[in-house]
Amino acid sequence: MSDPFQNVQTGKNVVIEEDVHIGKNVVIGHNTVILPGTSIGDNVKIGANCVIGIYPEGNNSMRESSQNVHPLIIKNGTKIGQLVTIYAGTLVGENVFIGDLASIREHVLVGEGTVIGRSAVIELNSRIGKNCTVQTLAYVTGDTILENNVFLGPNVSMANDKYMGAKAYTLRGPYIKQGAKVGNNASLLPGIQIGEDAVVGAGAVVTKDVESGLVVTGVPAKNQS
Amino acid sequence: MSDPFQNVQTGKNVVIEEDVHIGKNVVIGHNTVILPGTSIGDNVKIGANCVIGIYPEGNNSMRESSQNVHPLIIKNGTKIGQLVTIYAGTLVGENVFIGDLASIREHVLVGEGTVIGRSAVIELNSRIGKNCTVQTLAYVTGDTILENNVFLGPNVSMANDKYMGAKAYTLRGPYIKQGAKVGNNASLLPGIQIGEDAVVGAGAVVTKDVESGLVVTGVPAKNQS
Amino acid sequence: MSDPFQNVQTGKNVVIEEDVHIGKNVVIGHNTVILPGTSIGDNVKIGANCVIGIYPEGNNSMRESSQNVHPLIIKNGTKIGQLVTIYAGTLVGENVFIGDLASIREHVLVGEGTVIGRSAVIELNSRIGKNCTVQTLAYVTGDTILENNVFLGPNVSMANDKYMGAKAYTLRGPYIKQGAKVGNNASLLPGIQIGEDAVVGAGAVVTKDVESGLVVTGVPAKNQS
Repeated sequence: MSDPFQNVQTGKNVVIEEDVHIGKNVVIGHNTVILPGTSIGDNVKIGANCVIGIYPEGNNSMRESSQNVHPLIIKNGTKIGQLVTIYAGTLVGENVFIGDLASIREHVLVGEGTVIGRSAVIELNSRIGKNCTVQTLAYVTGDTILENNVFLGPNVSMANDKYMGAKAYTLRGPYIKQGAKVGNNASLLPGIQIGEDAVVGAGAVVTKDVESGLVVTGVPAKNQS
Repeated sequence: MSDPFQNVQTGKNVVIEEDVHIGKNVVIGHNTVILPGTSIGDNVKIGANCVIGIYPEGNNSMRESSQNVHPLIIKNGTKIGQLVTIYAGTLVGENVFIGDLASIREHVLVGEGTVIGRSAVIELNSRIGKNCTVQTLAYVTGDTILENNVFLGPNVSMANDKYMGAKAYTLRGPYIKQGAKVGNNASLLPGIQIGEDAVVGAGAVVTKDVESGLVVTGVPAKNQS
Repeated sequence: MSDPFQNVQTGKNVVIEEDVHIGKNVVIGHNTVILPGTSIGDNVKIGANCVIGIYPEGNNSMRESSQNVHPLIIKNGTKIGQLVTIYAGTLVGENVFIGDLASIREHVLVGEGTVIGRSAVIELNSRIGKNCTVQTLAYVTGDTILENNVFLGPNVSMANDKYMGAKAYTLRGPYIKQGAKVGNNASLLPGIQIGEDAVVGAGAVVTKDVESGLVVTGVPAKNQS
C-alpha cells in the first residue's frame, strides 16, 4: 500500500479510495473496498469482500437521503466480518462487532460494545445504544431508537410506516428503552414504545406501547401476569 | 476495458465475461463480476462485489431450472447496490432499485419502477409487477405473482409447497393483486390469493384467500370489520 | 495457479492461502477467497465472491469459540453459490448445496445431500443431518440438532438463550427429529424438541415439545387433531 498506511495489513485486491484515514494496527481482508473519505480507528479489523463507506443511492420512489452526508467513521477496536456493507453518514463506536453479511445504512449511530449479528440490517436514521445485541437476521427499520443494553433476538422485525406507502406520513420506527429484550421473530409496529426492562416474547406482534418491566406475548401481544 | 465498453466506468478488479452488452453511461463498482451474455441498458449503476447474470446450479434434490435459460437483461436506468446476485433467465425492467445483498433468481420478471429491498430474496419463476415495493429481508417464494403497486413489508414470508417436500405437488406461490399491502413479518401460505387493495396486518398468518379491499390480521388471519 | 492445483479451474482475482488442499475437477469463481488450511474435495464447485474457511472472531461480549478450531473441510461433489461464508472447524458433507449469501459458522456438521438455502444462517456448534432442507432465509441458532430428512421452511426462526443474555445459562437450541417439517416463518424456542415426522404450521410459535407425528399450529402452537 501507499505510504500513509504503513501500519495497515491489507489483503489482496483491496481497493482504498482517496482521503481514507486508517489508524494503527488495522487489518483489512482480501477484496474489500474502502470508499472515499472513510475514517477507520486503531485496531480495527475488517474481513474480506466488504464494501465500506458507501454513499447512498435510490430510485425515484425512495426518499432522498444523500444530502449532507459526512464520510463513515469507524472507531477503535471495532471488528467487522465478511461481505458487510456500511454507509457514509454513519458512526460506528468503539469495540463494536458486526457479523458477516450485515448492512448498516446512512445516518446511523452504533454505540460502543454493541453486537450487530450476521445478516442483520440497520436502516437509515436509526440510533443503537451501547452494549446492545442485535441478533442474526434481525431488522431495525429506519428512524428507530434503541437505548443502551437492548437485546433484539434473531429475526426480530419492525416497521416504520403505518400506511405502508399509501399516505404521506412522518416515518417513525419503534423506540426501545434501556434493558428491554425482544424475543426471536417478534414483530414491532411503527412508532410503538417498549419500556425499560420490558420483555417481548418470541413471535409476539406488538401493536401498542409496552410499559416498563412488563412481559408481553402473543398476537396481538398482551401482558402475562 | 476493451473497446466495446468505452462509455462504461468500471471499478478495479471488475470481471466482464464474453458476449456482455453494456449501454451508455453505465457505472460498475469494484470487484463486480458480469457473467456471459448479460445485457445491461443505458444509465445503469451497479455497486461493488456483485455477481450478475449467473447460470443456475443445484444438487440432486432440487428441481432443474437450467434448461432454456436466456442471459440476464437489465433495462435502462436501473440501480443495483452492493453484493447483489441476479440470475440468467431474468428480466429487470427500467428504473428498478435493488438493495445491497439482495438476490434474484432465474426466470423472474421485475417490473419498471419497482424497489427490491436489502437482503430480499426473489425465487425462480416469479413475476413482480410495476412500482411494487418489496422491503428489506422480504421473501418472495418461487412461482409467485405480484401485480402492480403491491407493497410487501419487511420480513414478509411466503411458501409455495404445502406438503413441504413430502409429496409430488405443483408448486404455487401466492397471487397478490394490484395495490395490496402486506405488513411486516406476515406469513403467506402456498397458493393463497390476496385481492386488490387488501391489507394484511403485521405478523398475520394468511391461510386462505383474502377478498379485495378487506383488512385481515391475526393467526390465522381474519377479517377486521 | 501454482502446481498443486493443476486440476482446478479458478476465476480471476481468486485468493488461495497457504496449506489449502483442493481435489480434482474443482471450479472456483472470481474474487473468491480460500483461507489457510481449507480442504476441498473432488468435483466441488464454489461461486464468485465467497469467503471460505474463516477463523472466528468476536468482541468481548461474545463467547470464545476460536479454541481448537480445525480447518474447514468440504467433501466431494458439494456446490456452493456466490457470496457465501463458511467457517473453520466445520465439516460440509458430500453433495451438499449451499445457496447464495448463506453463512455457516464454526463447529458445524452439514450432512450429505442437504440443501442450505439462500441467505440462510447456521450458527456455531450445530449439527444438520443428511438430506435435510433448510430453506431461504431460515435461521438455525447455535447448539441446534437437526436429524436426517428434516425440512425447515423459509424464514424459520430459532433461539437458544431463554434469558436473552440476562443470566448465565447453558445455551440450547432446538432438537428436531428425523423427518419433521417446520412451516415458513415459524418460531422455535430454546431447547424445545420436535418429534419424528411432526409438522409445525407456518407462523406457529413453538413453546414446548411436540410429540412425534403431531401437527401443531398457532401462537402458542397447539395440536390440531
